[in-house]
Amino acid sequence: MAQTSTGTGLQLRSTVKRDGTLELSLVSGATPEPKPEEVIVRVDASPINPSDQGLLFGGADPSTARASGTPDRPVVTASIPPAAMKALAGRVDQSLPVGNEGAGVVVQAGASPAAQALVGKTVAILGGAMYAQYRCIKAVQCLVLPPGTTPAEGASCFVNPLTALGMVATMRAEGHKALVHTAAASNLGQMLNKICLKDSVGLVNVVRNQAHVDLLKKLGAVHVVNSTSPGFMDELTEALATTGATVAFDAIGGGTLAGQILTAMEAAANRTAKEYSRYGSTTHKQVYIYGGLDRGPTQFSRAFGMAWGIGGWLLTPFLQKIGFEAAQKLRERVAAEIKTTFASTYTKEISLAEALRPEEIAVYAKLATGEKYLINPNKGLR
Amino acid sequence: MAQTSTGTGLQLRSTVKRDGTLELSLVSGATPEPKPEEVIVRVDASPINPSDQGLLFGGADPSTARASGTPDRPVVTASIPPAAMKALAGRVDQSLPVGNEGAGVVVQAGASPAAQALVGKTVAILGGAMYAQYRCIKAVQCLVLPPGTTPAEGASCFVNPLTALGMVATMRAEGHKALVHTAAASNLGQMLNKICLKDSVGLVNVVRNQAHVDLLKKLGAVHVVNSTSPGFMDELTEALATTGATVAFDAIGGGTLAGQILTAMEAAANRTAKEYSRYGSTTHKQVYIYGGLDRGPTQFSRAFGMAWGIGGWLLTPFLQKIGFEAAQKLRERVAAEIKTTFASTYTKEISLAEALRPEEIAVYAKLATGEKYLINPNKGLR
Repeated sequence: MAQTSTGTGLQLRSTVKRDGTLELSLVSGATPEPKPEEVIVRVDASPINPSDQGLLFGGADPSTARASGTPDRPVVTASIPPAAMKALAGRVDQSLPVGNEGAGVVVQAGASPAAQALVGKTVAILGGAMYAQYRCIKAVQCLVLPPGTTPAEGASCFVNPLTALGMVATMRAEGHKALVHTAAASNLGQMLNKICLKDSVGLVNVVRNQAHVDLLKKLGAVHVVNSTSPGFMDELTEALATTGATVAFDAIGGGTLAGQILTAMEAAANRTAKEYSRYGSTTHKQVYIYGGLDRGPTQFSRAFGMAWGIGGWLLTPFLQKIGFEAAQKLRERVAAEIKTTFASTYTKEISLAEALRPEEIAVYAKLATGEKYLINPNKGLR
Repeated sequence: MAQTSTGTGLQLRSTVKRDGTLELSLVSGATPEPKPEEVIVRVDASPINPSDQGLLFGGADPSTARASGTPDRPVVTASIPPAAMKALAGRVDQSLPVGNEGAGVVVQAGASPAAQALVGKTVAILGGAMYAQYRCIKAVQCLVLPPGTTPAEGASCFVNPLTALGMVATMRAEGHKALVHTAAASNLGQMLNKICLKDSVGLVNVVRNQAHVDLLKKLGAVHVVNSTSPGFMDELTEALATTGATVAFDAIGGGTLAGQILTAMEAAANRTAKEYSRYGSTTHKQVYIYGGLDRGPTQFSRAFGMAWGIGGWLLTPFLQKIGFEAAQKLRERVAAEIKTTFASTYTKEISLAEALRPEEIAVYAKLATGEKYLINPNKGLR
């Protein structure tokens, strides 16, 4: 029966030590007895998203990863550049659990009817501390997946799907009619492309190589521009003029791309200008930086008038802003379309111990498009 | 009587020619008969603001200015760098009038009572085309100055005063409790300092040398930090923590200052953080770039979490956003305090012809704090 105690379980922990060393390890702990409103979920699938890697690596250089410990209880250490330590002061010497989201089966439940109703169900969770065999969590935080959905299929129900839906919702709320997305061949980018095709929203996909142009075109994308093409600025301006996109969501962060997008938006806006304005177009042009694939500095030349903004964009504040009910509607759409619009693909499924192997870290830490890993914390342990 | 016709008058014009040459000249034209709702203002004082110089010079390099023409009808030409020409496509071969604001005496009026009521009054105008002996304008656009105010005293009633008031209003409207200002020893900065002292608003003044620290301290400024000081980041963070300033208005634009301000705001916010947040503080930190004293690229390192924004800020859209009545209240405050809070100082008063002398251009084009020029379009002509 699912009601039996789950005993103990392994959890992945990340610690930034005062001496500038990052330590990743597995710790064993007793799974708590669920309170009346809580359930215990056996986590069978949890993705390694870019948004997990900041907490996981704490700014350490993944190429310095060294293995120690035992095969069952591996330990990885890596060096953190001194410049990165200042921003990490708040987490020094704390052993932190990792893993934003995942899915699994409810194996134990508290006494409340809401909790009891979930026993045996496959659920998805956005709760942190998901790189663990078992996760104790409030029943209300569980998204029940449609029958026939596996934990692997439901593992990425939140971060990418809600971010993609959040981009479209932000575009609408701020009065834009189409949007731009960079690093657009990513899992998230493919979802956004599917949402925009389904909902008839104009989307300009920006990618960094021809293979990603081909990939997105094959998925039906209408506008795909390659930032390494010699005609990039002209092609981008053309796509912006066609779609009317005046907001962009940028996963890159560093370099000149955000500014290039604003410059192209301004050029597109000025195509329809009736007279010279010394302050540029009055169309507000916005770039939201939501990722940092390029961790270098951001640089731009302000050749885009005065009606512009660049800012950070993050899922959690967006969800807080729209409120529980509106967010719940987005979550329900994700569950309903988890095998279609919001389907994710993974390169490899690894165990918690495998996640600490330097040779695996070398692959997944690259954040390369098409190299997404899924952790199964119970792989080989049941 | 003031009702006699004003005949003809000189006006300063700026033309960007297709071959990449800027031409400044004086043209003579008949002053129009005012329509019923209009008046003719004899312009006696109009400042050369940084915001005038973009239209005046059209991106030309002022150091290439060459004089020709006659002493009464001088012509100046200068070279525009080819890279700047693209953004100027909208104004090529158009002879444009210059001068955002100014003050003078109403010398003729249309038949309407509102226009007639202004005859003989000293008024201030924000209307463009003010580098001219006479300006025909709607009576409703004239701000009547208090009795005893000279045109020179009322010449800068709009751009700097409304921008300074607009910064404080924007700060309040967006939920910030104090603000930062850069290039803070400028005429505008001195006004902002006076407003903040009078209205008990926290202000962090950022300047670039010790002389400007001393100047602002002498004017009663509480927080003045020098960006060339070795302890700049610590001093700035301390002032931000003390005031709680989370919005900045930046006149510099280029370089690293905007990013440094956001980084210091984040450090100040994290002083009171209770637990580690991988995405940085949840306090929204905003820098508005409203000028371009450094025309080079803007660069920042995104070491300030995800709750941040950088954007353009411009007076006209701000005034449109708050609406006519709210804007009128601001204008009335300016008129009432024109000799105190909003008093401007000028280095020199020049005629239209003198404004086209390369040796004068060399001074006022530098936009140096404390080198502000006032044009008197009727100097030597009446």
